[in-house]
Amino acid sequence: MTGITVPADRLVELGAAILVAHGVPEDDARLVADSLVTADMWGHPSHGMLRLDWYVARLRAGVMTAVTEPETVLDGGAVVVLDGRDGVGQIATERACALAVDRARQHGIGLVAVRFSNHFGTAAYWTRRIADAGCVGILTTNGSPAMAPWGGREKTVGANPWSIATPGGSHGPVVLDIANTGVARGKIYAALQKGESIPDTWAIDSSGTPTTDPRAAIEGILLPMAGHKGYGISFMMDVLSGVLTGSGYATDVVGPYVPDQRSGCGHLVVAIDIDRILGRDEFDRRIDDLIARTKSVPLAAGVSEVFYPGEIENRAEERGRAEGVFLPDKTVDELKSLAVDAGVPFDLVPAEVV
Amino acid sequence: MTGITVPADRLVELGAAILVAHGVPEDDARLVADSLVTADMWGHPSHGMLRLDWYVARLRAGVMTAVTEPETVLDGGAVVVLDGRDGVGQIATERACALAVDRARQHGIGLVAVRFSNHFGTAAYWTRRIADAGCVGILTTNGSPAMAPWGGREKTVGANPWSIATPGGSHGPVVLDIANTGVARGKIYAALQKGESIPDTWAIDSSGTPTTDPRAAIEGILLPMAGHKGYGISFMMDVLSGVLTGSGYATDVVGPYVPDQRSGCGHLVVAIDIDRILGRDEFDRRIDDLIARTKSVPLAAGVSEVFYPGEIENRAEERGRAEGVFLPDKTVDELKSLAVDAGVPFDLVPAEVV
Repeated sequence: MTGITVPADRLVELGAAILVAHGVPEDDARLVADSLVTADMWGHPSHGMLRLDWYVARLRAGVMTAVTEPETVLDGGAVVVLDGRDGVGQIATERACALAVDRARQHGIGLVAVRFSNHFGTAAYWTRRIADAGCVGILTTNGSPAMAPWGGREKTVGANPWSIATPGGSHGPVVLDIANTGVARGKIYAALQKGESIPDTWAIDSSGTPTTDPRAAIEGILLPMAGHKGYGISFMMDVLSGVLTGSGYATDVVGPYVPDQRSGCGHLVVAIDIDRILGRDEFDRRIDDLIARTKSVPLAAGVSEVFYPGEIENRAEERGRAEGVFLPDKTVDELKSLAVDAGVPFDLVPAEVV
Repeated sequence: MTGITVPADRLVELGAAILVAHGVPEDDARLVADSLVTADMWGHPSHGMLRLDWYVARLRAGVMTAVTEPETVLDGGAVVVLDGRDGVGQIATERACALAVDRARQHGIGLVAVRFSNHFGTAAYWTRRIADAGCVGILTTNGSPAMAPWGGREKTVGANPWSIATPGGSHGPVVLDIANTGVARGKIYAALQKGESIPDTWAIDSSGTPTTDPRAAIEGILLPMAGHKGYGISFMMDVLSGVLTGSGYATDVVGPYVPDQRSGCGHLVVAIDIDRILGRDEFDRRIDDLIARTKSVPLAAGVSEVFYPGEIENRAEERGRAEGVFLPDKTVDELKSLAVDAGVPFDLVPAEVV
């Protein structure tokens, strides 16, 4: 695959300028762009700048509001319910995370339910912020139907990503971020973007047959991770993110790649103030010990290192900020076209030709 | 497999009498026995009465205290930390769940961290109680090392079960309860108990080779569900249940089948009062709708029904309470021997010979 490697900050600036041209306030635009560029740096291009095109289409159609002004539906102290009013998912989520941390400082734990939001990028981008504030961060969301309920052959269950992050002591944050499909739908879009085929364990086509064609998989049905367990987890994430928050759920939720329909997705954010449970120093000492013991086990054949969850992304982000972010040609072309349409100068200078 | 089907209440009475003979207070003993018998009714004998023998051995050795008196380490309003002081896991967990619900009533959300507890039976038994109180129940625990960290070949990661339950509207509760291994370790014990072999995808033996022998699997290493995702989930459950609560973690946690060592396991309990987020009636209406939509999808070939998570157990429990609980001969023999040793009359009358 050919493409270019560009400096991360320049890429954020370009993305932000394109969003500003569509009415998104400058600080908000920079945050959204950073959330996408960071996913590219982590090596998750499925959730990276290739999504900017989708966001712009939704802003243009008016189904995502450029100026995000969440409404407080209910404020119960340790629990808050926000209505995202169809604003930008990243911005509604940033407000929710800040509120959850604030309430955790007061009560030990804080919960913020967000209804009628939009796609927020990666879940880990947000739980990492909560971890950086010294809390345990938990975030669930629901997405458009991607899987059949176990034993069915019609999609009602989203991939419904969820993430848990904590501080990592002397390391970067410890972070889990998974979709409950065998693979994230975005990885199939990335394969489509790259023109690659996919393993036949990822999805069945619309007739129910396993497929290696990413386009047939997108039109077909993803399989859950871990069989019925993945179905169960994803169902519960929809209950938490959609049913409980008062947002859309099941087939009511629309994906970010649909340009002209309201998303309906919801999020549940929980922050736990570590200082109010155990004390931060003690937690850091213990997590350092857990990481050290985990990384010191004998290795399986062909393996060079055991990683704690999130470690690979921690390293990749450090490398990306220093050395630049790789973008495939197709994404570069899309960005160029978005920039031209928005009247924004397209000034990406490759850090290195790949 | 031969065995007998016995009335559930008689089985609970027998289990309780055996525990009382070892110093467990009567109400506590009945609760512990009910938690095991209920698992048998659900069709999860791996977590059923076959474990009573293990509990008795631990009570006799003095590593599990018969009279459970948790100490409140910290009371921060919405968050509480308890030290189980090596008491019976079920009793420490019952206190923690009641406290979490009480704090959720006051603050909208309540969290109780429990350190130095013991095995508590199934996680679902406890989250169902929280759901019955009108709350979302979330419970995590950590167990003795069962898996290698991804890429390693030495056990440091437990199966670390976790459960989420909510009320199910006009249905029984909606319940997720999973271990992060491909299978629960208890299923391998159940296969051993029944003299059956296991699929070769469940575990590797101590040399790293996949095995169909349950004994070799118990001595070997379980594989996580969903590959590296299962490793990540289980690692985080150890962070929440062990590192954050101030309890044991990783290789410090000892399994309930070890008769003479302190458990060191911890639990994290969260309750969310649905009435403080959305209102119970609205939640019930929405979950009924989600269940109806889930159960009405077209079925895959050979499938007779789609179930919501927990539905199979809801039905099995109803049937078990009406028709009795099946016990394999080996478990019956163990119970008889426990009863004789404890000087308790063994009076199980089969409801039906199987």
